[in-house]
Amino acid sequence: MKIVRFQISNGLVHYGELIENKIYQILNFSYQQREYVFGEEFPVSQVKIIAPVNPGKVIGLAYNYKDLVGEKEKFEEPLIFLKSTESIIGPNETIKILEGSKTWAEVELVVVIGKDCSNVRPELASEYIYGYTIGNDVTMANLYNRDHHLARSKALDTFCPIGPFIETSLDVKNLSLKHKINGILFQNGNTNNRILNDVEAVSLVSRFMKLNPGDIILTGTPANAMNSLITDGDHIEMEISNLGVLSNQVQFK
Amino acid sequence: MKIVRFQISNGLVHYGELIENKIYQILNFSYQQREYVFGEEFPVSQVKIIAPVNPGKVIGLAYNYKDLVGEKEKFEEPLIFLKSTESIIGPNETIKILEGSKTWAEVELVVVIGKDCSNVRPELASEYIYGYTIGNDVTMANLYNRDHHLARSKALDTFCPIGPFIETSLDVKNLSLKHKINGILFQNGNTNNRILNDVEAVSLVSRFMKLNPGDIILTGTPANAMNSLITDGDHIEMEISNLGVLSNQVQFK
Repeated sequence: MKIVRFQISNGLVHYGELIENKIYQILNFSYQQREYVFGEEFPVSQVKIIAPVNPGKVIGLAYNYKDLVGEKEKFEEPLIFLKSTESIIGPNETIKILEGSKTWAEVELVVVIGKDCSNVRPELASEYIYGYTIGNDVTMANLYNRDHHLARSKALDTFCPIGPFIETSLDVKNLSLKHKINGILFQNGNTNNRILNDVEAVSLVSRFMKLNPGDIILTGTPANAMNSLITDGDHIEMEISNLGVLSNQVQFK
Repeated sequence: MKIVRFQISNGLVHYGELIENKIYQILNFSYQQREYVFGEEFPVSQVKIIAPVNPGKVIGLAYNYKDLVGEKEKFEEPLIFLKSTESIIGPNETIKILEGSKTWAEVELVVVIGKDCSNVRPELASEYIYGYTIGNDVTMANLYNRDHHLARSKALDTFCPIGPFIETSLDVKNLSLKHKINGILFQNGNTNNRILNDVEAVSLVSRFMKLNPGDIILTGTPANAMNSLITDGDHIEMEISNLGVLSNQVQFK
């Protein structure tokens, strides 16, 4: 099932199921129970698709791909960071970067949480996952080479495009991830190259922070993101198998 | 004016003005306009005082006190980090720490944002400040000495006690900050020792992230926080002139 959030002319936010070129409005959307009641039907061309979730928390993993970290006998546990809720934008919205900064884009598989969880074990974690979408973990180089907390690198407004939809049933073992700028391929990874998979990532984060329905975890990016600085006018496409393409343009602030 | 949030027996959250031992319920609370309409009156002893704000974003400054950073000719700009909204707890609630961790408390003056702002200049920033309260930036030592993003140090559930009230008119130039554990004084600082004051802090953060009503900025901690690890059963009191005392107890998770 492909879940979208969309707006019609009056600006109200609706949830819907996407089937081909149609959206079937969901009247009683909830992450916890999936027996949905459907309302009106809209052609995709007549609505504005927005970010598929409005998360309370945006959590990222750093150094979770083996091709990024390099060859090691034993891979270390990924690091955890927070992005701001204000960093969230939807498909086709504009990423606003500081002129003169070194900023790049990162393609990531995003886990959307479906139920409250704390301290969940990996073998039980799939029960707490609602679905998956594409994320772009836009990142600005460390200021002064000392601002390692990453809030000023990763939590800026518009620095977390997500979408275009949430797929609620997806085998995430062997998905290709592609990251193109103006049509040129920069990242070309695969989810089977991760150090922690999705259930392990949910388990790890839930040991430190309670996760709520709609919270999201970006599960890290493959190699080669930093080789591709983005600038005013660029067009970025992030593609993950079965999750479509997340497109955004870049502008100076 | 001292603003509190409180619950009566039914668990609903109310806003009120605190005057001595009475709370005057505010019926139309808003951060943007302060012409409040008052409802019922409650003795403080008959309600539960909770965190005075439920922020959308919790932003912290690191290295903002000269006595913490040490003697330098020119002080560097403080670092910025995010805490989780789940880290927020109120007065007399319990800080839950991991057994075996090195965890400490930090007394901080907290700015509560009153209006949307982006890119605001310091000389205009006071207009966007709703008021001030006390914060305790509970911090766990870096895991593996490599997790510098600080999410796992500072964004854990219950790691941001705030309160007991928001003071909406306060001269913040020369306030004493004290931090006691089980009655013993560990930090004894003064807001005039900061590198960035409140309006400069709001200005800095607003260059990177849009600030919304109810967002909070913890403006850093004076020296000596790390000398006082906290453990199960400890009783922490944070005191700032004119802002009362924020008391919390500590328990192992």
